[in-house]
Amino acid sequence: MRTIFTTLFIFWGFLSAGAQTTDSLNLLPRPQTVKLQTGRFIISNKFAVGINGPGSPKLIASVNRFYVQLAKRTGVIFPQEYISGKENPADAQLAISYQKSINPVIGIDESYTLTVTPEKIALTATTDIGAEHGLETLYQLLTPAGSGFCCPAVEINDAPRFKWRGLMIDVARHFIPFEVLKRNVDAMAIVKMNVLHLHLSDDEGFRVESKVYPKLQENGSNGLFYTQHQLKELVNYAHDRGIIVVPEFDLPGHCSSILAAYPFLASYPANYKPARRFNIDTIKNSSLGKIMQLINQVQTPTIDPTKESTYVFFDQFLREMSSIFTDPYFHVGADENNGVAWKQNPAIAAFMKAKGMKTTDDLQAYFVNRMHGIAQKYNKRIIGWEETFNATVPQDVIIQKWKPAAPADTLVKSIVGHHNQVIISAGYYLDMYFPAYIHYLTDPVPANLNAAAAEKGILGGEAAMWSELVDGGNEEIRVWPRTAAIAERFWSDAGVRSADDMYRRLWALDFELNDRAVNEYDSYIKILDRWVNDEELNTAITLCNVYTQVKGYKRLMAAILSPGEVHAKTTLTTPLVGIADAVHTDSETGWYFRQLVATYLDKHDAASLEQIKSQLQRWQSNKARFNALAANSPYLQQIADLSDNLSNAAGIVLQALNNEGNKDDQLKQLQQLEKPRHEVQLAIGQSLEALVTGKLKPEPAAYSMF
Amino acid sequence: MRTIFTTLFIFWGFLSAGAQTTDSLNLLPRPQTVKLQTGRFIISNKFAVGINGPGSPKLIASVNRFYVQLAKRTGVIFPQEYISGKENPADAQLAISYQKSINPVIGIDESYTLTVTPEKIALTATTDIGAEHGLETLYQLLTPAGSGFCCPAVEINDAPRFKWRGLMIDVARHFIPFEVLKRNVDAMAIVKMNVLHLHLSDDEGFRVESKVYPKLQENGSNGLFYTQHQLKELVNYAHDRGIIVVPEFDLPGHCSSILAAYPFLASYPANYKPARRFNIDTIKNSSLGKIMQLINQVQTPTIDPTKESTYVFFDQFLREMSSIFTDPYFHVGADENNGVAWKQNPAIAAFMKAKGMKTTDDLQAYFVNRMHGIAQKYNKRIIGWEETFNATVPQDVIIQKWKPAAPADTLVKSIVGHHNQVIISAGYYLDMYFPAYIHYLTDPVPANLNAAAAEKGILGGEAAMWSELVDGGNEEIRVWPRTAAIAERFWSDAGVRSADDMYRRLWALDFELNDRAVNEYDSYIKILDRWVNDEELNTAITLCNVYTQVKGYKRLMAAILSPGEVHAKTTLTTPLVGIADAVHTDSETGWYFRQLVATYLDKHDAASLEQIKSQLQRWQSNKARFNALAANSPYLQQIADLSDNLSNAAGIVLQALNNEGNKDDQLKQLQQLEKPRHEVQLAIGQSLEALVTGKLKPEPAAYSMF
Repeated sequence: MRTIFTTLFIFWGFLSAGAQTTDSLNLLPRPQTVKLQTGRFIISNKFAVGINGPGSPKLIASVNRFYVQLAKRTGVIFPQEYISGKENPADAQLAISYQKSINPVIGIDESYTLTVTPEKIALTATTDIGAEHGLETLYQLLTPAGSGFCCPAVEINDAPRFKWRGLMIDVARHFIPFEVLKRNVDAMAIVKMNVLHLHLSDDEGFRVESKVYPKLQENGSNGLFYTQHQLKELVNYAHDRGIIVVPEFDLPGHCSSILAAYPFLASYPANYKPARRFNIDTIKNSSLGKIMQLINQVQTPTIDPTKESTYVFFDQFLREMSSIFTDPYFHVGADENNGVAWKQNPAIAAFMKAKGMKTTDDLQAYFVNRMHGIAQKYNKRIIGWEETFNATVPQDVIIQKWKPAAPADTLVKSIVGHHNQVIISAGYYLDMYFPAYIHYLTDPVPANLNAAAAEKGILGGEAAMWSELVDGGNEEIRVWPRTAAIAERFWSDAGVRSADDMYRRLWALDFELNDRAVNEYDSYIKILDRWVNDEELNTAITLCNVYTQVKGYKRLMAAILSPGEVHAKTTLTTPLVGIADAVHTDSETGWYFRQLVATYLDKHDAASLEQIKSQLQRWQSNKARFNALAANSPYLQQIADLSDNLSNAAGIVLQALNNEGNKDDQLKQLQQLEKPRHEVQLAIGQSLEALVTGKLKPEPAAYSMF
Repeated sequence: MRTIFTTLFIFWGFLSAGAQTTDSLNLLPRPQTVKLQTGRFIISNKFAVGINGPGSPKLIASVNRFYVQLAKRTGVIFPQEYISGKENPADAQLAISYQKSINPVIGIDESYTLTVTPEKIALTATTDIGAEHGLETLYQLLTPAGSGFCCPAVEINDAPRFKWRGLMIDVARHFIPFEVLKRNVDAMAIVKMNVLHLHLSDDEGFRVESKVYPKLQENGSNGLFYTQHQLKELVNYAHDRGIIVVPEFDLPGHCSSILAAYPFLASYPANYKPARRFNIDTIKNSSLGKIMQLINQVQTPTIDPTKESTYVFFDQFLREMSSIFTDPYFHVGADENNGVAWKQNPAIAAFMKAKGMKTTDDLQAYFVNRMHGIAQKYNKRIIGWEETFNATVPQDVIIQKWKPAAPADTLVKSIVGHHNQVIISAGYYLDMYFPAYIHYLTDPVPANLNAAAAEKGILGGEAAMWSELVDGGNEEIRVWPRTAAIAERFWSDAGVRSADDMYRRLWALDFELNDRAVNEYDSYIKILDRWVNDEELNTAITLCNVYTQVKGYKRLMAAILSPGEVHAKTTLTTPLVGIADAVHTDSETGWYFRQLVATYLDKHDAASLEQIKSQLQRWQSNKARFNALAANSPYLQQIADLSDNLSNAAGIVLQALNNEGNKDDQLKQLQQLEKPRHEVQLAIGQSLEALVTGKLKPEPAAYSMF
């Protein structure tokens, strides 16, 4: 929700009939073609819906949800109590027609055409899923207009660029509650994503109820896992919204939680327990290089791929999981296995020798091929992270690219050349705290692939939310609205690349996401409200709205990267309730302020200057109220330096705007005040500096992971 | 969340060691005995928990939830990753011990003892459920104290006054989403309620998936119902929190949705469909008396109790529902059956004659007795609304009292005299928009019952949330925090009756409820944010915080009670997104303002006067920002009169405080401005008038239902 700067900008998205360009619409993802027409359709109490098609239960449910939501948004009492799909009223103002009702499958026809005239709205699609996408677009056309709501007259033809538009959620490191998953699915449907990939097991936890192997959840989960009933409900829930669910069980590494339950699967005997992330005591005071070396040398919990009993186990397991996860994919992980556990086990070494395997990579390939054979029994295609790829991998195995690489990615080219298909996650890692535009400007197709190879080989992409520093209390803040920018990258034309236009639409979409899907704003407020013990909230909001996380893995690897500095601890028991946990990675306030500063530096107009000064004064004076609240707030006391810094920075800029003081000194002071603390940094630093120097630097084109 | 007036009051609940009285604690419901001791226990990173008892899975889960929540609230990193209940560390700072692990059953030992010293906390209970109650009390002792959090040293002995402490939620009129039910259960656990009564079917909808009779949900629900998986999960979820679930299927009347599925059950042939509430066209322009007469004369959809096929049906149905609802109660409704459908069917009349029945009440008694026989097969006790009671009703049938009656209720006395037990809902109807104190000051025990009869006959009570004007978007606003006051009435001693002290604690509890359980505040914000199209929210909040609904059934029966006036429509398709849907029934701002005005009128101090004036100015000036936002907001335009009235009323009082103008005229003008509009009224009316007259009237002791 916007509380600041909005008066300047509220007319950007506002409809003035006849004088509108495509750019003023708030559609996200942007459709392939949008032709604005003259006039507008007004939402009234005559708004009836007719459906013409083969009776898709999921489309009928979607239409009813849309109808109820539209009534809630507009306050209009609509004529139909329930749209059964059979009545098809002749006077329907919204006429939906489609030809096929199908289960969501990768590669189906998802196109739709939406025609709005002042009299009527027509939505046509080949499939019910295409029609569902069209409903989402129609909802985004809704605009308040005086005493009512309308949609601009428009003709839209739309279809996705990529078949696979996914969001991966790691529910293993921190458990993500079931309700949160459902809300993510709601948000995904709004931005037309179609794959929910759940990272269901890792060293730290196993999150699915197994009835065949109940110790998996009993010994592997600390009590936090999804029941089979819940997962079946989730799969149905996702299917109803055109989304498939891909389960991942990370093998043969990343499996402490599985070995804690069934140690006979292990490559070496040990007292296995679900792991605790980052044992800081053992790795502190090491360089990154040394740590990476260590990671490659240390024996880590790994499945023994040489025993037949392993495959008997996973055959039974896959059979059971296939009754829950009915979509035709099974993700086996296969990442970050250093092979040390295998090398150090003489029996495994002997097995490799007997089979003529030269490296542990060959043994992993053997494991993947065996799993591939099992998966075929249950009509599943195997997916694996990029380490899965080698010369012997079957061509129907899908490879998920995750390691950052140059725009011309040689691995992807090799994979596509080998006729395997690829899902791109490199560039879309949400745990790096990169702002949305960085992901947005990353194209899934590497620069060295020609169009034909890309068309054949690149299935699409997936945003990835690893959960070392995310739990149910902040997952929605971290994922949304940022992921919508990635969703547009996967859906819209490659040429749609204006970051500023994306942000303009993203803030509008954020309202819709909060209203219809996620509790992102509520999660934020819940954390801040605890800090202030339910006293006045605005002060904390004012502060947090202009801070954002330090970029890259600096916090996650704090003890490694900066052993001398004090960093927030990142064990699994750390409550994720600090400022770096609460704030958004993209600062809406910071973006609006930057626009304002850019306007002022361009025009030097009094109106902009006045708004800037008024905002700076608000930041400057926020400190007094902050300190009053801090008397009763342990957490505010801890971050009082951030409040001081914001106040001081605003004061310095006000001085500079009044032409007082020395600009060089002011700039140095600002840069000092902008230094990261508590794992966050000022999101308005460049804008503040620009008000001193008169020059606004462009946003960085890239950030470092470390 | 408090945004106004809090600076005055934040120290009320604040701990000052050694100088504390019981009254400064924020415990709700108030325990039976609380003895404050000297000193306080400080929550530190040494806070470990030991559990000594027979290994209750639900208590272990509760303790872990408590532990994680405490870490989130305090920001402290605790030493234990997971409390398995086996480790029982010798240095545990919180030592929990209990003797029995049991399923929640009405009448079990729910007592606990909680002893906090500066060194250690001891929680002891007979049962795991008692220990869970003790954890909730402990959490409410938590207080911010400088740079950390503490609990005051205290000794608490506690046990409930009544065995049955329920909340009934009608999910038939408007469907209430599954997640909302779970959040209600979370809130119930916080205030130590132990019965969730679900009104699962009524004329307007049937809300449970039946596999035996699938048309029930197919024809009776408009697609909105709970799956069996969900309900099983809900029952487990409630049991884990010490709460039983009582299903109600309303029979033999209130059953259009059932007859829409299986018309052979009906007393007369018709084209049955789920009903629409209040067909305004047919009943408008009638007096209340005429309507009531009509209601008693009209044939309404009713089960035919004379056919054996009816009992075959309900036997199968009860058998199926018993596999979901495992607690030993089955509510059959049996309310508001006028018997006309029976009288008008010759075959039923003949049956009555053959059996020697004189009235349709006798026939309903026959129906209840037959249902009682079926219920016995499945080990269920029958519950029915008060119309169930008559001379032939079996003594193990529980009667739920709902009609308002004088404090000396003769019906209850008769029921208790007949050795049936009673649940009291009269006085606890949440759909009447009565403020919390009205319910709070209503004792469940009628004045004409002696202690022994009450002990034997009054099981307890239930708050009742009928959902004609409530849906998933506002159920939590309507139920919470108000129901906590009723929960205290059912749990605490009858002598705990200070409304002001209850309200003081209720506002503190409301923070906890929002943090740990319900999305009450978020529901409120979601509605208001739609009005302002995601622009600045504070203006709408300022307005809505001082309005509350007109009391009684005036809105629900608007077309009946006030045919000449314009009222909000109340059909089932009316989107519940107006001000009467959004606001709380108790105004926190209004309560704090009243305290401030009372202080000022008592002391005539400058500080209070200044705060009052500052607040009045804020209300007065809110109008300008409101009007600016209204330009883009259809809904704000509709309620601009409320904004004008608040502004004008504040202006008049400011004038009076400056000794300008004529007080009589000002009072008249105020009273004019306070008149209800849009189904709401000013919650600060009495306080404003008092600032003119110098006298603050007491709050009304009662309100009319109509």
